[in-house]
Amino acid sequence: MAMAFHPLAASRVRLAPLLPAAAPSSSSVAAHHHHHRRRFSAIVATAAPASAPTVFDFNTYMGERAETVNRALDAAIPAGEPPAALHEAMRYSLLAGGKRVRPALCLAACGVVGGREAWALAPAAAVEMVHTMSLVHDDLPCMDDDDLRRGKPTCHVVYGEPIAVLTGDALLSLAFHHVASVGSYPPDVDPEKHPARVVRAIFELARCIGSEGLVAGQVVDLEMTGTSEVVPLERLEYIHLHKTAALLEASVVIGAIIGGGTDEQIERLRKYARSIGLLFQVVDDILDVTKSSEELGKTAGKDLATDKTTYPKLLGLEKSREFAEKLLSDAKEQLAGFDKEKAAPLLHLAYYIAHRQN
Amino acid sequence: MAMAFHPLAASRVRLAPLLPAAAPSSSSVAAHHHHHRRRFSAIVATAAPASAPTVFDFNTYMGERAETVNRALDAAIPAGEPPAALHEAMRYSLLAGGKRVRPALCLAACGVVGGREAWALAPAAAVEMVHTMSLVHDDLPCMDDDDLRRGKPTCHVVYGEPIAVLTGDALLSLAFHHVASVGSYPPDVDPEKHPARVVRAIFELARCIGSEGLVAGQVVDLEMTGTSEVVPLERLEYIHLHKTAALLEASVVIGAIIGGGTDEQIERLRKYARSIGLLFQVVDDILDVTKSSEELGKTAGKDLATDKTTYPKLLGLEKSREFAEKLLSDAKEQLAGFDKEKAAPLLHLAYYIAHRQN
Repeated sequence: MAMAFHPLAASRVRLAPLLPAAAPSSSSVAAHHHHHRRRFSAIVATAAPASAPTVFDFNTYMGERAETVNRALDAAIPAGEPPAALHEAMRYSLLAGGKRVRPALCLAACGVVGGREAWALAPAAAVEMVHTMSLVHDDLPCMDDDDLRRGKPTCHVVYGEPIAVLTGDALLSLAFHHVASVGSYPPDVDPEKHPARVVRAIFELARCIGSEGLVAGQVVDLEMTGTSEVVPLERLEYIHLHKTAALLEASVVIGAIIGGGTDEQIERLRKYARSIGLLFQVVDDILDVTKSSEELGKTAGKDLATDKTTYPKLLGLEKSREFAEKLLSDAKEQLAGFDKEKAAPLLHLAYYIAHRQN
Repeated sequence: MAMAFHPLAASRVRLAPLLPAAAPSSSSVAAHHHHHRRRFSAIVATAAPASAPTVFDFNTYMGERAETVNRALDAAIPAGEPPAALHEAMRYSLLAGGKRVRPALCLAACGVVGGREAWALAPAAAVEMVHTMSLVHDDLPCMDDDDLRRGKPTCHVVYGEPIAVLTGDALLSLAFHHVASVGSYPPDVDPEKHPARVVRAIFELARCIGSEGLVAGQVVDLEMTGTSEVVPLERLEYIHLHKTAALLEASVVIGAIIGGGTDEQIERLRKYARSIGLLFQVVDDILDVTKSSEELGKTAGKDLATDKTTYPKLLGLEKSREFAEKLLSDAKEQLAGFDKEKAAPLLHLAYYIAHRQN
């Protein structure tokens, strides 16, 4: 599952590393904090990259973020502890090797408003938990009935339907547990120091899931599936704005909140996120008709086979690609007001979402 | 569905009313706050009982709390707005007329540590959302496959399985959304004034749901169902402590947190809650073998029919009743250190849980 990044990915923008060289070692911090704190330090200490600022490289940027986020996700769910079947299914679904685009957006948004990316590691992990939960539930036999996800058998295929439902529930609550836990943060921004930021982040996270977000999109998506009626474009956009864009928006906005962004910065990044959110789905639809299952790691052509409305079906492939370019340009516009170096990751994430191949 | 309260319920303890007579009217408050705030005021202003302190009466106490909580729940989910099917299913499940024991515990715990009960209305509504979500998912065909709940057809029977799964997800996220929303609180304790309390409440709420709470209990419960092996008492207690007691504990603890309780008060109330949590399930098991479906409003004898381990099955009916009395006495002991008048609701809630008939 190699990532195909945009050629611009390796442009020469200098960025501070994910974690500062002066980050305290896990042992010195552990003495002053309870075990939750120790857990955070253990994650970041081993994940700390080289100390000097490095030439910006998108592949390296994404790889390092994915590794750090995976470590946080791994630490958040105990392996082997009872109930073992549940923890195993949660780990199977969560550690299946996605590209961690949402966590990267969250970390990058924290950085663009002037925060240290490590501040946003907890919400970054949480948005991935929410994303995984929605995949696990959407894949259920009574929903989209998908057997393959990220190139592996889906949760319910491996663990059965009851455990898959409960795995989603547990991941959803774990996301909030993780964001609200003192031990998920570095000491300078933990919920005891900045509780207002954390409450606001939780508000955004919760809003993007339910009847204003992921779930709303899935409900309307299910209503549309298999109907012979032609689905209007507005209905299609409703589905994608809720099913895909809402969580991408929350990922960006939450990162900016935890990073201490101003209301004006947060709202500009919200607009950026809405554009790339819709972009993400348009590209997904395009890939679905142009790529094989093997390349995508999931069942391709399924949207067409089950009569789902997609952008290529409604607009044609060429117009869908033009629409994607327009959304990319809208997203770039919102980044114009930010420091160029700090905005590089979000800029390249937009390029990546526009031009990815799976 | 009349409630059969314990004879002690009408003892003569004086309590402040749920809301003070001096509570600002909805119009005077509305001028200073955005629409979320107005919504809170509208709920409490119309629900405000008579102004003078009244003689404590448990039936009245519970009836007033249920009415206020129902109003908050009703206001939290828009009727008719899209996606209409989802909102309808959420309202159907949430407004099905349960006894609102968990919200009452939350409100009463806020009061016992010296808070105004109205402060805890948001988390009280949230714990009911979480409770309902767990019922909706547990009732699913792939889970316990229950057709009847609170005397009505279950969510998946009325709305289908996909909507039932999504209704649970939406209720779960709405619970966190509600607790994190400024507009869910009276102005004196909203998340902008007391964000640390709100974060701590969210932490407790999240913890009681997933692999340390409701979901863990359901997983182990499913593992036990239909096995011929004799389930040891520790395993049965694990199930109930997670499936039932965890949320009751969170309800009490969250109320105490929002009410501004000290750590020592919160921990004492946690112990109280653990006792009544287990008590709740022991009584549930006893009722299941001694009452008809009509009296219970759900399928009775099901636990025996499907070979579920229950306290009466493991200990016999008489020993189960003795165990219930022991748990009640443990719970009372934890309330001894609190102001007697302020502790009256929690005391009577313990009596009610011990002696309820459905």
